[in-house]
Amino acid sequence: ADVTLYGQVDATLASRQLSGGIRTTGVNDGGMSTSHFGFRGSEDLGDGLKANFDLSGFFTVDTGVTGRFAGSPDGLLSRRATVGLSGGFGQLDVGRIGTPYFFSMILFNPFIDSAVYSPVFLHTYTGGQFPMSATPMNGPDSGASNVVQYTTPTYRGVNAKLMYAPGEVAGAAGKRRVSGNVNYYAGPLALTFAFERDTTALGTLATLPNPETSQRAYLGGATYDLGAVKLYGQLQRITQVFNAAGTDRKYTISQVGAAIPAGAGKFLLSWARSSIDLPAAGVSPYTVVPGFPALPAGVATSGVDPRRNTVTVGYDHNLSKRTDLYALLMRDAYTGLATGRSVALGIRHRY
Amino acid sequence: ADVTLYGQVDATLASRQLSGGIRTTGVNDGGMSTSHFGFRGSEDLGDGLKANFDLSGFFTVDTGVTGRFAGSPDGLLSRRATVGLSGGFGQLDVGRIGTPYFFSMILFNPFIDSAVYSPVFLHTYTGGQFPMSATPMNGPDSGASNVVQYTTPTYRGVNAKLMYAPGEVAGAAGKRRVSGNVNYYAGPLALTFAFERDTTALGTLATLPNPETSQRAYLGGATYDLGAVKLYGQLQRITQVFNAAGTDRKYTISQVGAAIPAGAGKFLLSWARSSIDLPAAGVSPYTVVPGFPALPAGVATSGVDPRRNTVTVGYDHNLSKRTDLYALLMRDAYTGLATGRSVALGIRHRY
Amino acid sequence: ADVTLYGQVDATLASRQLSGGIRTTGVNDGGMSTSHFGFRGSEDLGDGLKANFDLSGFFTVDTGVTGRFAGSPDGLLSRRATVGLSGGFGQLDVGRIGTPYFFSMILFNPFIDSAVYSPVFLHTYTGGQFPMSATPMNGPDSGASNVVQYTTPTYRGVNAKLMYAPGEVAGAAGKRRVSGNVNYYAGPLALTFAFERDTTALGTLATLPNPETSQRAYLGGATYDLGAVKLYGQLQRITQVFNAAGTDRKYTISQVGAAIPAGAGKFLLSWARSSIDLPAAGVSPYTVVPGFPALPAGVATSGVDPRRNTVTVGYDHNLSKRTDLYALLMRDAYTGLATGRSVALGIRHRY
Repeated sequence: ADVTLYGQVDATLASRQLSGGIRTTGVNDGGMSTSHFGFRGSEDLGDGLKANFDLSGFFTVDTGVTGRFAGSPDGLLSRRATVGLSGGFGQLDVGRIGTPYFFSMILFNPFIDSAVYSPVFLHTYTGGQFPMSATPMNGPDSGASNVVQYTTPTYRGVNAKLMYAPGEVAGAAGKRRVSGNVNYYAGPLALTFAFERDTTALGTLATLPNPETSQRAYLGGATYDLGAVKLYGQLQRITQVFNAAGTDRKYTISQVGAAIPAGAGKFLLSWARSSIDLPAAGVSPYTVVPGFPALPAGVATSGVDPRRNTVTVGYDHNLSKRTDLYALLMRDAYTGLATGRSVALGIRHRY
Repeated sequence: ADVTLYGQVDATLASRQLSGGIRTTGVNDGGMSTSHFGFRGSEDLGDGLKANFDLSGFFTVDTGVTGRFAGSPDGLLSRRATVGLSGGFGQLDVGRIGTPYFFSMILFNPFIDSAVYSPVFLHTYTGGQFPMSATPMNGPDSGASNVVQYTTPTYRGVNAKLMYAPGEVAGAAGKRRVSGNVNYYAGPLALTFAFERDTTALGTLATLPNPETSQRAYLGGATYDLGAVKLYGQLQRITQVFNAAGTDRKYTISQVGAAIPAGAGKFLLSWARSSIDLPAAGVSPYTVVPGFPALPAGVATSGVDPRRNTVTVGYDHNLSKRTDLYALLMRDAYTGLATGRSVALGIRHRY
Repeated sequence: ADVTLYGQVDATLASRQLSGGIRTTGVNDGGMSTSHFGFRGSEDLGDGLKANFDLSGFFTVDTGVTGRFAGSPDGLLSRRATVGLSGGFGQLDVGRIGTPYFFSMILFNPFIDSAVYSPVFLHTYTGGQFPMSATPMNGPDSGASNVVQYTTPTYRGVNAKLMYAPGEVAGAAGKRRVSGNVNYYAGPLALTFAFERDTTALGTLATLPNPETSQRAYLGGATYDLGAVKLYGQLQRITQVFNAAGTDRKYTISQVGAAIPAGAGKFLLSWARSSIDLPAAGVSPYTVVPGFPALPAGVATSGVDPRRNTVTVGYDHNLSKRTDLYALLMRDAYTGLATGRSVALGIRHRY
């Protein structure tokens, strides 16, 4: 039948160290974008109506294993698995997707979906080397299962996405995950606003003595293309709500970046800064998660709102529209922890 | 090389409840047919001889995970993985397949291979919400590994399949699984007869104090197409043989159904009824399987031969030859248990 | 995009028994070559430069499961997952590959990559039915992850491959795996020399009281095509270095073989012989690996350097360039153990 194969293979030689973390040196996957494969198709049903499907999975090229990273819970088609209809009314998709919030986050920073070197990606979804409990979007992963998603048509430069995923937990009605964004494009300017709210089981944090009960997140972003440079900015506010009153944790993440065309490629620069607003002085920002490493010496657990600053600079050289070589430097600093420094060289090929 | 990609993506919004079971509401896979992908090819060897291969796997579109359902033992290509030859002599396939018995079961009911809404599929392979030990075809799954299968050519409307799978258990010669069917097609009439016999290890039932030692099954089916309506009927008799004398369990499953063309689609109706003939009064039809839920209150374990009645009605609307929308209602009732009621809306796309 | 699908499906009916092992009879995968699928592509970047990718995974056609054998650690794309560049300078690949040593081993024996019936493949990578600790290339698998590999252009019939894989173990700098080969082709003659050295964690042997700390291997091979017969020979020397002084174990593996064109196919013959040089009289060649079967009665554990002789003969009949049928007989004898005899019939199809 009429199926398009597509995908991307991205391999990196890197020496990588997050703030407070151990240096690892070797061959890794996805310095610019996690490797993936996919196949998709569209059928014309007449009157502008189309039936669409899209099936795509992650793998790590350094090991040939399914998923975004070693030990990930990802299945064969965890990147996207949808079937749906599109037409004048917009587009309806059912299945598994990356959330609208995730797409606003990646499209409004110059390193896009680099899960390992985009500063704002790291601050939002990946967290530091530890402690995982201080990861803002722990629980609500960048991907969502059991989804119905509606995308509006674009009208006067505006479009929007709304995603709904029921919790599907027997005997726990009302649990759900909702995410959406609104986008505006006008010549050199692009704006986005995104939100996400999750009341389903929230990963490891749901099993603690003071369990996380819900999470909400807001994101605003803008890009402006001056020709000689394209500027990127975004601001996120994420709240983890815990069962005990007065223990909620609030994160603020900001990012500024730039892409500067030069030769056959672009210089890329991105700086993300995040902070935790503790509910009260003397309350630790860290939850001790059984089975995870203890906090290292030097991490203040009271009297201080920890901050993280991460900067990545790089050059991305296009050998063609489908193949690029890149070189990256990253600096990652977390309050009270040793600064981490990374260097990466890579090749990416799209098919 | 000359490879054909094919497959199907089927997503459903459903509120589903089996008799005595818990209601789950959400986005599911495969209301009409479990989602799958595949690639296959044929090479012309001359003189009518062909070399064939077919590789196909299941996935659930709501989660992007491999297999027929969450937690299934299915591998990447569990739907079909074969290599073989075909020609004037018929067709020979080696590898993993769906059994001939399974194909007779699905082709002689109007909901075909809907693992979640075809009444006779549920009664034969899926069982009720519990107890799994009362599932007629527990052990001999719908798919079989280590198979050699021969398919005859069609002569005067008659063809047949015979499948043999050695047990491959070291030190246990003679263990095997055999399945076959004979089919007859004459204008509006189609007839099938199928059997299956399994002496290999039989799933959970093989580990019980009184283990299941073998299983045999017979199926007869007919369809007749009157034009305004196509009628479906089938009858199965399945015997689970246990180690202790006088404890065999016998199941009778019957199904009647109809498909009524209307507009761009069809109304579909199917009713399956099954009963267990207990070996003696006072013998429980249930085996307490360690790790499975206990029998709920209200289930008589002696003095009664339990029955199950399941009816599904639906409308399947074709947007094209490859894409359809469907709406289904199901009612499931098991002796002594609360009746379960389900509703489902879905979209299916073939590629 | 411009993607080529390729692969091979190989199914075998066999009764197989290794020396000292239990006979298993049934339908198996890969009598001549383990089944696999793949997709690859090349992009012309101008000036003779190309970007390349190749993604390929193993599966077993008898069960439809991912990997080379039941219970293998293989991921979806464990056969090959690479991205890289090629041109006048040669070829650079990054990702996961089969090692250069492995390719020299398979290309210089007439049964090539038959993991179950090529005598020298069995002696080098698969080991006997037991004890796994006496497998020469235990630890360094035929495939390697985290690899950078350089292949030279061919100049006057000479080319070479060099592969480097850092250990990527945090806090264990200097651990690495290196493999390479040099090949020479001149008319009917082909020569190879290969080596491999591994200081990374070495499988089960790394967890023993006297752990294996490194392994090194050398291989020389030649083929000569006389027309009426093509002759094959290779010699390997493999050393497992253990932590305690004076306990290293040395293996010598030799293989001679022939391929004799006849009709539409070839007769194939291969004999491999291997021996262990014990470090001292009275030292057992076997390491008792917890969880593995004990040594059977009849295996001398001192005063004898054990030997293994394995001979396979067969006929491989081509139905076309892409499809063949084969019949094989194998005899496997290990010092002190009962001789094992095997017979296999199979079909293989390439696409």
